[in-house]
Amino acid sequence: MALTGKHFIAGRWTASGEADFTSINPRTKAAGEVKFYNATAEEIDQAVSAAADAFQITRNFSAEKLAGFLEKAADEIEALGDELLETADMEAGLGIPRFTGERGRTTGQLRAFAKLIREGSYIDAIIDTALPDRKPLPRPDIRRMQIPIGPVAVFGASNFPLAFSVAGGDTASAFAAGCPVIVKAHPSHPATSELVARAIGNAIKACGFPAGFFSLVQGRTIESGQNLVKHPQLAAVGFTGSLRGGRALADTAAQRPTPIPVFAEMGSINPVVILPGAIKERGDALAEGLANSVTLGSGQFCTNPGLIFVMDTPESETLIENTASQMKGKPECVLLNAGIEKALASTVETTRGRDGVNTLAGGEALEGRDFFSYSNTVMATDVDNFIADPQLQTEHFGPVTLFVTCKDTQSLNEAISHLEGNLTATVHATEKELEDAGQLFNHLREKVGRLIFNGFPTGVEVSYAMHHGGPYPATTAPGTTSVGMTAIRRFMRPVTFQGLPDSLLPDALKSANPLGIWRIVNGEYSKDSI
Amino acid sequence: MALTGKHFIAGRWTASGEADFTSINPRTKAAGEVKFYNATAEEIDQAVSAAADAFQITRNFSAEKLAGFLEKAADEIEALGDELLETADMEAGLGIPRFTGERGRTTGQLRAFAKLIREGSYIDAIIDTALPDRKPLPRPDIRRMQIPIGPVAVFGASNFPLAFSVAGGDTASAFAAGCPVIVKAHPSHPATSELVARAIGNAIKACGFPAGFFSLVQGRTIESGQNLVKHPQLAAVGFTGSLRGGRALADTAAQRPTPIPVFAEMGSINPVVILPGAIKERGDALAEGLANSVTLGSGQFCTNPGLIFVMDTPESETLIENTASQMKGKPECVLLNAGIEKALASTVETTRGRDGVNTLAGGEALEGRDFFSYSNTVMATDVDNFIADPQLQTEHFGPVTLFVTCKDTQSLNEAISHLEGNLTATVHATEKELEDAGQLFNHLREKVGRLIFNGFPTGVEVSYAMHHGGPYPATTAPGTTSVGMTAIRRFMRPVTFQGLPDSLLPDALKSANPLGIWRIVNGEYSKDSI
Repeated sequence: MALTGKHFIAGRWTASGEADFTSINPRTKAAGEVKFYNATAEEIDQAVSAAADAFQITRNFSAEKLAGFLEKAADEIEALGDELLETADMEAGLGIPRFTGERGRTTGQLRAFAKLIREGSYIDAIIDTALPDRKPLPRPDIRRMQIPIGPVAVFGASNFPLAFSVAGGDTASAFAAGCPVIVKAHPSHPATSELVARAIGNAIKACGFPAGFFSLVQGRTIESGQNLVKHPQLAAVGFTGSLRGGRALADTAAQRPTPIPVFAEMGSINPVVILPGAIKERGDALAEGLANSVTLGSGQFCTNPGLIFVMDTPESETLIENTASQMKGKPECVLLNAGIEKALASTVETTRGRDGVNTLAGGEALEGRDFFSYSNTVMATDVDNFIADPQLQTEHFGPVTLFVTCKDTQSLNEAISHLEGNLTATVHATEKELEDAGQLFNHLREKVGRLIFNGFPTGVEVSYAMHHGGPYPATTAPGTTSVGMTAIRRFMRPVTFQGLPDSLLPDALKSANPLGIWRIVNGEYSKDSI
Repeated sequence: MALTGKHFIAGRWTASGEADFTSINPRTKAAGEVKFYNATAEEIDQAVSAAADAFQITRNFSAEKLAGFLEKAADEIEALGDELLETADMEAGLGIPRFTGERGRTTGQLRAFAKLIREGSYIDAIIDTALPDRKPLPRPDIRRMQIPIGPVAVFGASNFPLAFSVAGGDTASAFAAGCPVIVKAHPSHPATSELVARAIGNAIKACGFPAGFFSLVQGRTIESGQNLVKHPQLAAVGFTGSLRGGRALADTAAQRPTPIPVFAEMGSINPVVILPGAIKERGDALAEGLANSVTLGSGQFCTNPGLIFVMDTPESETLIENTASQMKGKPECVLLNAGIEKALASTVETTRGRDGVNTLAGGEALEGRDFFSYSNTVMATDVDNFIADPQLQTEHFGPVTLFVTCKDTQSLNEAISHLEGNLTATVHATEKELEDAGQLFNHLREKVGRLIFNGFPTGVEVSYAMHHGGPYPATTAPGTTSVGMTAIRRFMRPVTFQGLPDSLLPDALKSANPLGIWRIVNGEYSKDSI
């Protein structure tokens, strides 16, 4: 089936605006043949209105029905076959093996959410039974659970065309909650987005879901995204991307007549602290591991380790040199698009121009390549510069890292206290340095959403306990995660039922506990009937 | 001990600004003798800075230590004795019995949070154990729990000088989480606030907590509240009050360089639907119950039933007349302050001026009284007017309600679909009307945070399952509650520990489960060790 370049609105491929952008192959800079349309305000209104109508139906769907749909969507994505992998690679240039893995992650998380909602305890049922004899007043029967919040807009990320885009974690968790989704595709991979939308459309048809449960709108203009966030029937927004983009959407949402939450994951520089003993013990492995982590996916990971603290020792100097040497030995990267190439060159140039910053590898645009790229870059500075210059906390979205040499533990702690919010922080230490590591984790904890010991921050497990979030500017909502099973909590809100007869209560709250889920009954966890 | 009129900042009574306001006794309109100060920007900075310093200590406190403090604070509030009740009554005019009950609610919720955190499962521990043999990559050990977010500002409410003010639900839940609190006292009850601050100060001293864990700032200017919300070291805001006030703080918080969440509960008109059979079965009791609920606390409850839908039957007419007659028979109310008196007169006048609104009781300012008051008021309109005129959803903060007569079920459902967000919705029905009630609850659910069957919305239990929240404009954060045990979730955020040795993990996440709490381990609820 040929690409249409159109939007997929409530089951129909449609477009009335201007078709003025194409895929660009980052490996050749060649434009694709199909022109993609910019969504008009009217089309966005159609998509959100259809979602609101669909929600009146899907909000009453059982977990079983929603789970079946999630699994069917995963099957349909797999059924797209190699065309999906090749299209994603053509648009994002990260390679077929990477997209094979990313597809597995995407279908895996759809199925993981199906499993979660089938088990059922995610509904967070809490029950206080009546106390008719309480003095001075009886206590009524009070029962609380989570319900879906309504239509959700999802903004696809440039760096994960599958796992954080059309059927990515935001969409999967919103669907699992029972919320319709309107995806604003990232203009860097419109064809991949169209293919995945086709798969979701097939699943909707096969499962008899209302067509408005899912729409995809294409567009390269800021206006289309803003129109989506402003729509009065929208209930929430999921976003993965830049700080500037995420903050703009959050500001728009906060200024609505009825404000709505924006769950924006906006990147991070992911500080890593490497203690002296660890360098002595495994300096070569650390240099190799750092270079691998910094260059993974051409460095275009939210969890890229962009800031590395070491103590001022000869071994640290060797580590920095070895890392720089490793980075120089890595192949030239392929970046996602021209915008990222330009932004990376600009942010690195700014950082290199700050006082006391040395460049040990790269730091230059690669001229004359027929692919989007930038040199693998290692910079270094000392802790006084770092503390004095907030500019040194700028994210360089690409294969770039900055070493900071600390003269002592006190200055390291001071540097940590100056850190902005991040997704992750990592400490490398030996057995003997465990106490120091513990103290560092205790400080770092206040700045991040995930702490890692003797590992690397890239690689975010999709699991129950994963938290992919953190204080601003890492995200706009530090209490929530965009990866892992608790991501579903973003798209639900509590409602309490007081004094309702059993026959009017949702199954999750009926006294017999017909769903067999875990509930908190009068303060005690229980699967029993009441 | 005489009142000082000053702020209580990190253990010291201090004031450098202007002392220009007093308590006003709503029963006599007489000014109190003590002048209270407006907090300066510098004083607010001192309070928040001290809170941020204290947080570096209290964030590591055990639940046991925090629980002991909460209980001590409750004891100290009780130790204030009758002076507290008399002062609150002098400032708010709601009567000694009401304040005796409200004090019990206040100390009760401090102790309930102590019990919650001692039990420990509120920490939301989720553990995924390592899968070292997983292909293609091993899974690391991943463990997640909630940590406190940092210094919290709490804005006291005018209508609950104890339970939603200095040591109210926001403060209790923030303390329980381990967060320092800076209370901005409501200028309508500064003396009550000073007394409660004294009690908390005693508890802080007795428990050896850092003095900055609690501060109270007084002030009657909007500026003082805005300065507090803008402070860079503040992490979150709790607020109970008007839509205008809550939205202003939320806008300020959203515009900060680092936005922070504002958990504002901003009132509601709390729709009640009374089906025809219920009126036939118990019309007199309903009229009496409605009049009692509408006038409780002089109608100054967030959950006041300000909107009552009935079907167009002769019995409904009788119910409306009886309710109006009951309301006329109630004593003249004492309102909290001059501002509320003025606002109530103005909002009722506006509503009475809308097309098709009839006044059946009250609707007039009471002239020449030496207390703040307004007539107990019943208005009525029909469903077409209600649907056509969003103005009829204005909250009248006082003993006022509006009946809406519906010509049929369809128009009732349409009216429900036009409702803004509310805290509660109530349905009265007979056994035979259960199916209709179920359909109504299903619609109403989307508009509110709590559904009540055959009861009245006033009276909010402090319990595990209570949800006191709802979609905007009832609150700014529909996923959260300001009453009940889950209120603590507002002031915590998750953090994940990846690959940490057991010795570096917090007790809640250690493999042996030394706290004996409920955890989710590889997707299963368990109290076992790993």
